[in-house]
Amino acid sequence: MPVVAAYAAPSEGAPLVPTTIERREPGPLDVVIDIAYAGICHSDIHTVQGDWGPQHYPLAPGHEIAGTVSAVGSDVTRFAVGDRVGVGCLVNSCGECDACLRGEEQYCRGGAIGTYGATDRDGTITQGGYSRQVVVTEAFVLRIPDAIPLDRAAPLLCAGITTYSPLRHWNVGPGTRVAVVGLGGLGHMAVQIAHALGAEVTVLSQSLRKKDEGIRLGADHYLATSDPETFSANKRSFDVILNTVSAPLPLDAYLNLIDTNGTMVSVGAPPEPMSFRAGLLLGGRRSLAGSSIGGIRETQEMLDFCAEHGIAAEIELIDAVGINAAYARVLASDVKFRFVIDVATI
Amino acid sequence: MPVVAAYAAPSEGAPLVPTTIERREPGPLDVVIDIAYAGICHSDIHTVQGDWGPQHYPLAPGHEIAGTVSAVGSDVTRFAVGDRVGVGCLVNSCGECDACLRGEEQYCRGGAIGTYGATDRDGTITQGGYSRQVVVTEAFVLRIPDAIPLDRAAPLLCAGITTYSPLRHWNVGPGTRVAVVGLGGLGHMAVQIAHALGAEVTVLSQSLRKKDEGIRLGADHYLATSDPETFSANKRSFDVILNTVSAPLPLDAYLNLIDTNGTMVSVGAPPEPMSFRAGLLLGGRRSLAGSSIGGIRETQEMLDFCAEHGIAAEIELIDAVGINAAYARVLASDVKFRFVIDVATI
Repeated sequence: MPVVAAYAAPSEGAPLVPTTIERREPGPLDVVIDIAYAGICHSDIHTVQGDWGPQHYPLAPGHEIAGTVSAVGSDVTRFAVGDRVGVGCLVNSCGECDACLRGEEQYCRGGAIGTYGATDRDGTITQGGYSRQVVVTEAFVLRIPDAIPLDRAAPLLCAGITTYSPLRHWNVGPGTRVAVVGLGGLGHMAVQIAHALGAEVTVLSQSLRKKDEGIRLGADHYLATSDPETFSANKRSFDVILNTVSAPLPLDAYLNLIDTNGTMVSVGAPPEPMSFRAGLLLGGRRSLAGSSIGGIRETQEMLDFCAEHGIAAEIELIDAVGINAAYARVLASDVKFRFVIDVATI
Repeated sequence: MPVVAAYAAPSEGAPLVPTTIERREPGPLDVVIDIAYAGICHSDIHTVQGDWGPQHYPLAPGHEIAGTVSAVGSDVTRFAVGDRVGVGCLVNSCGECDACLRGEEQYCRGGAIGTYGATDRDGTITQGGYSRQVVVTEAFVLRIPDAIPLDRAAPLLCAGITTYSPLRHWNVGPGTRVAVVGLGGLGHMAVQIAHALGAEVTVLSQSLRKKDEGIRLGADHYLATSDPETFSANKRSFDVILNTVSAPLPLDAYLNLIDTNGTMVSVGAPPEPMSFRAGLLLGGRRSLAGSSIGGIRETQEMLDFCAEHGIAAEIELIDAVGINAAYARVLASDVKFRFVIDVATI
């Protein structure tokens, strides 16, 4: 079994430390990827802290992976050594259910296999991208277009697809009025993508602190949710509200901002329940929805779309030794807009 | 001004009493309807009790109206004396906004005018169908097909369209697994319509008390929500859950019953907030939605659909003197499935 350098949490809630992890011997359909960059997603922190249930430790997180192919199995047809590739939140699924067959592996009935902390179909526990190398079956490897630098591509594999998928599913395009709640790692991708899709984009952020960045990324309007005027002056003003915030929101106030037939879709899930008045859904056939990452086909479509429109993540590149400090800053919302680990420093 | 016999609430919460109300002089576009039957909708009770805000009294409720045309204005083109017609929840709207232009008058931006207790565009307060005659502008008059008896047609004008519209909007048809929550006035229409649309229909009712009726109306399955097994054994089993219950539900339990890409749509709105965990929306791109009655064009479509499929409301026909007793029985859920007033007894 190949042994590779990694940064991993040795136990629940412990700081990440340099270590080694094992990768499987590549099979005929496997692609071996030398990882160049790994984004830090808030999910990584939740997972290693045990917020989402007990984990196997040591655990190397990371599901925003970009690198180059260093070897391919004998039956691999779509990738060759040297290709620029990425891996996102999923590394396997049953491949046979209705969800998989229509390219929505994230909703696989057998249970999609997460890139880290999941039990793979061969019984091993998956380990993520904070490591020098990963072995992934061809069907879950994405091609990163030349137009996107690898470091700025890494966050697209989670933050990009998580926002692209609902924007596409709810038919955002020219004439659509989109509000993006939160301008963090997800939100800053949502603004760029919605703008490139031709929508009129409004950022709803707690304060106007990041207004200049929001406008630069493509927002047409930028409003502070701490200002009651934002809610009183913008009733029925949006067709789609994309909520990228993982904390509970006062939903009734947001529902009033949605126009007839509009939808508020959340891509983050606070553990606390949220409450709302159903009458606000009736009065305009509004919907509250959720969306989880995206399928492999759509992830490739997103990467190609980003390349075509000059979109990439805005990142702070860090050395591996800075991972724990970066975690603290993510928890303090002190990042513009995504930390990416230079994996050569692991 | 024509004065007509009616049953009306003289003040908030008071029992309804026989009285007279004024109707407007018919204008060139008006249709005068001799009312034969008026259904009793739970909304009538809420409104006269003041549950939905202060009202003008005396107030004659009733928005499930069936009768025959007794006179038409000079510019009326679509109706003639003797035609069998109906009036539902709406009697006017701006006619010019995007919602009106696409036939969704219920979401009129200027505010659709309710059949009773609303301020009409001429400044008068509308009065409902518990009366011998009503004057309605042609655009809001529906044609009742000969195949549907007038008494059993009346409830279609609210209970029918309120369930037909969301079933159509969410593309219910052959292969769709629909659950109808509650087998009351709305639910018993939803079951018949969903069955006629070709869906596999399950009733989710508090008990199995009305199971035989549910199966007779077209349900394929009938489950008791008081039985925990209903929730544990039917996860991801429905594409659409149509919630006809106006009381708060434990949403998380219901969300677990929805399959990937499915929707739970409510057509009743409890005044109390309801809470849910957003993670249940993400895990399968589920939606919580609301729907309010339907537009005039779709209401006509619903009436024609019901005629074609032999669908009508199941009713208990009562004399006007029994209205207050019927209200008490509606509040006790003791009706199969809709009270209809024989307006000749007013």
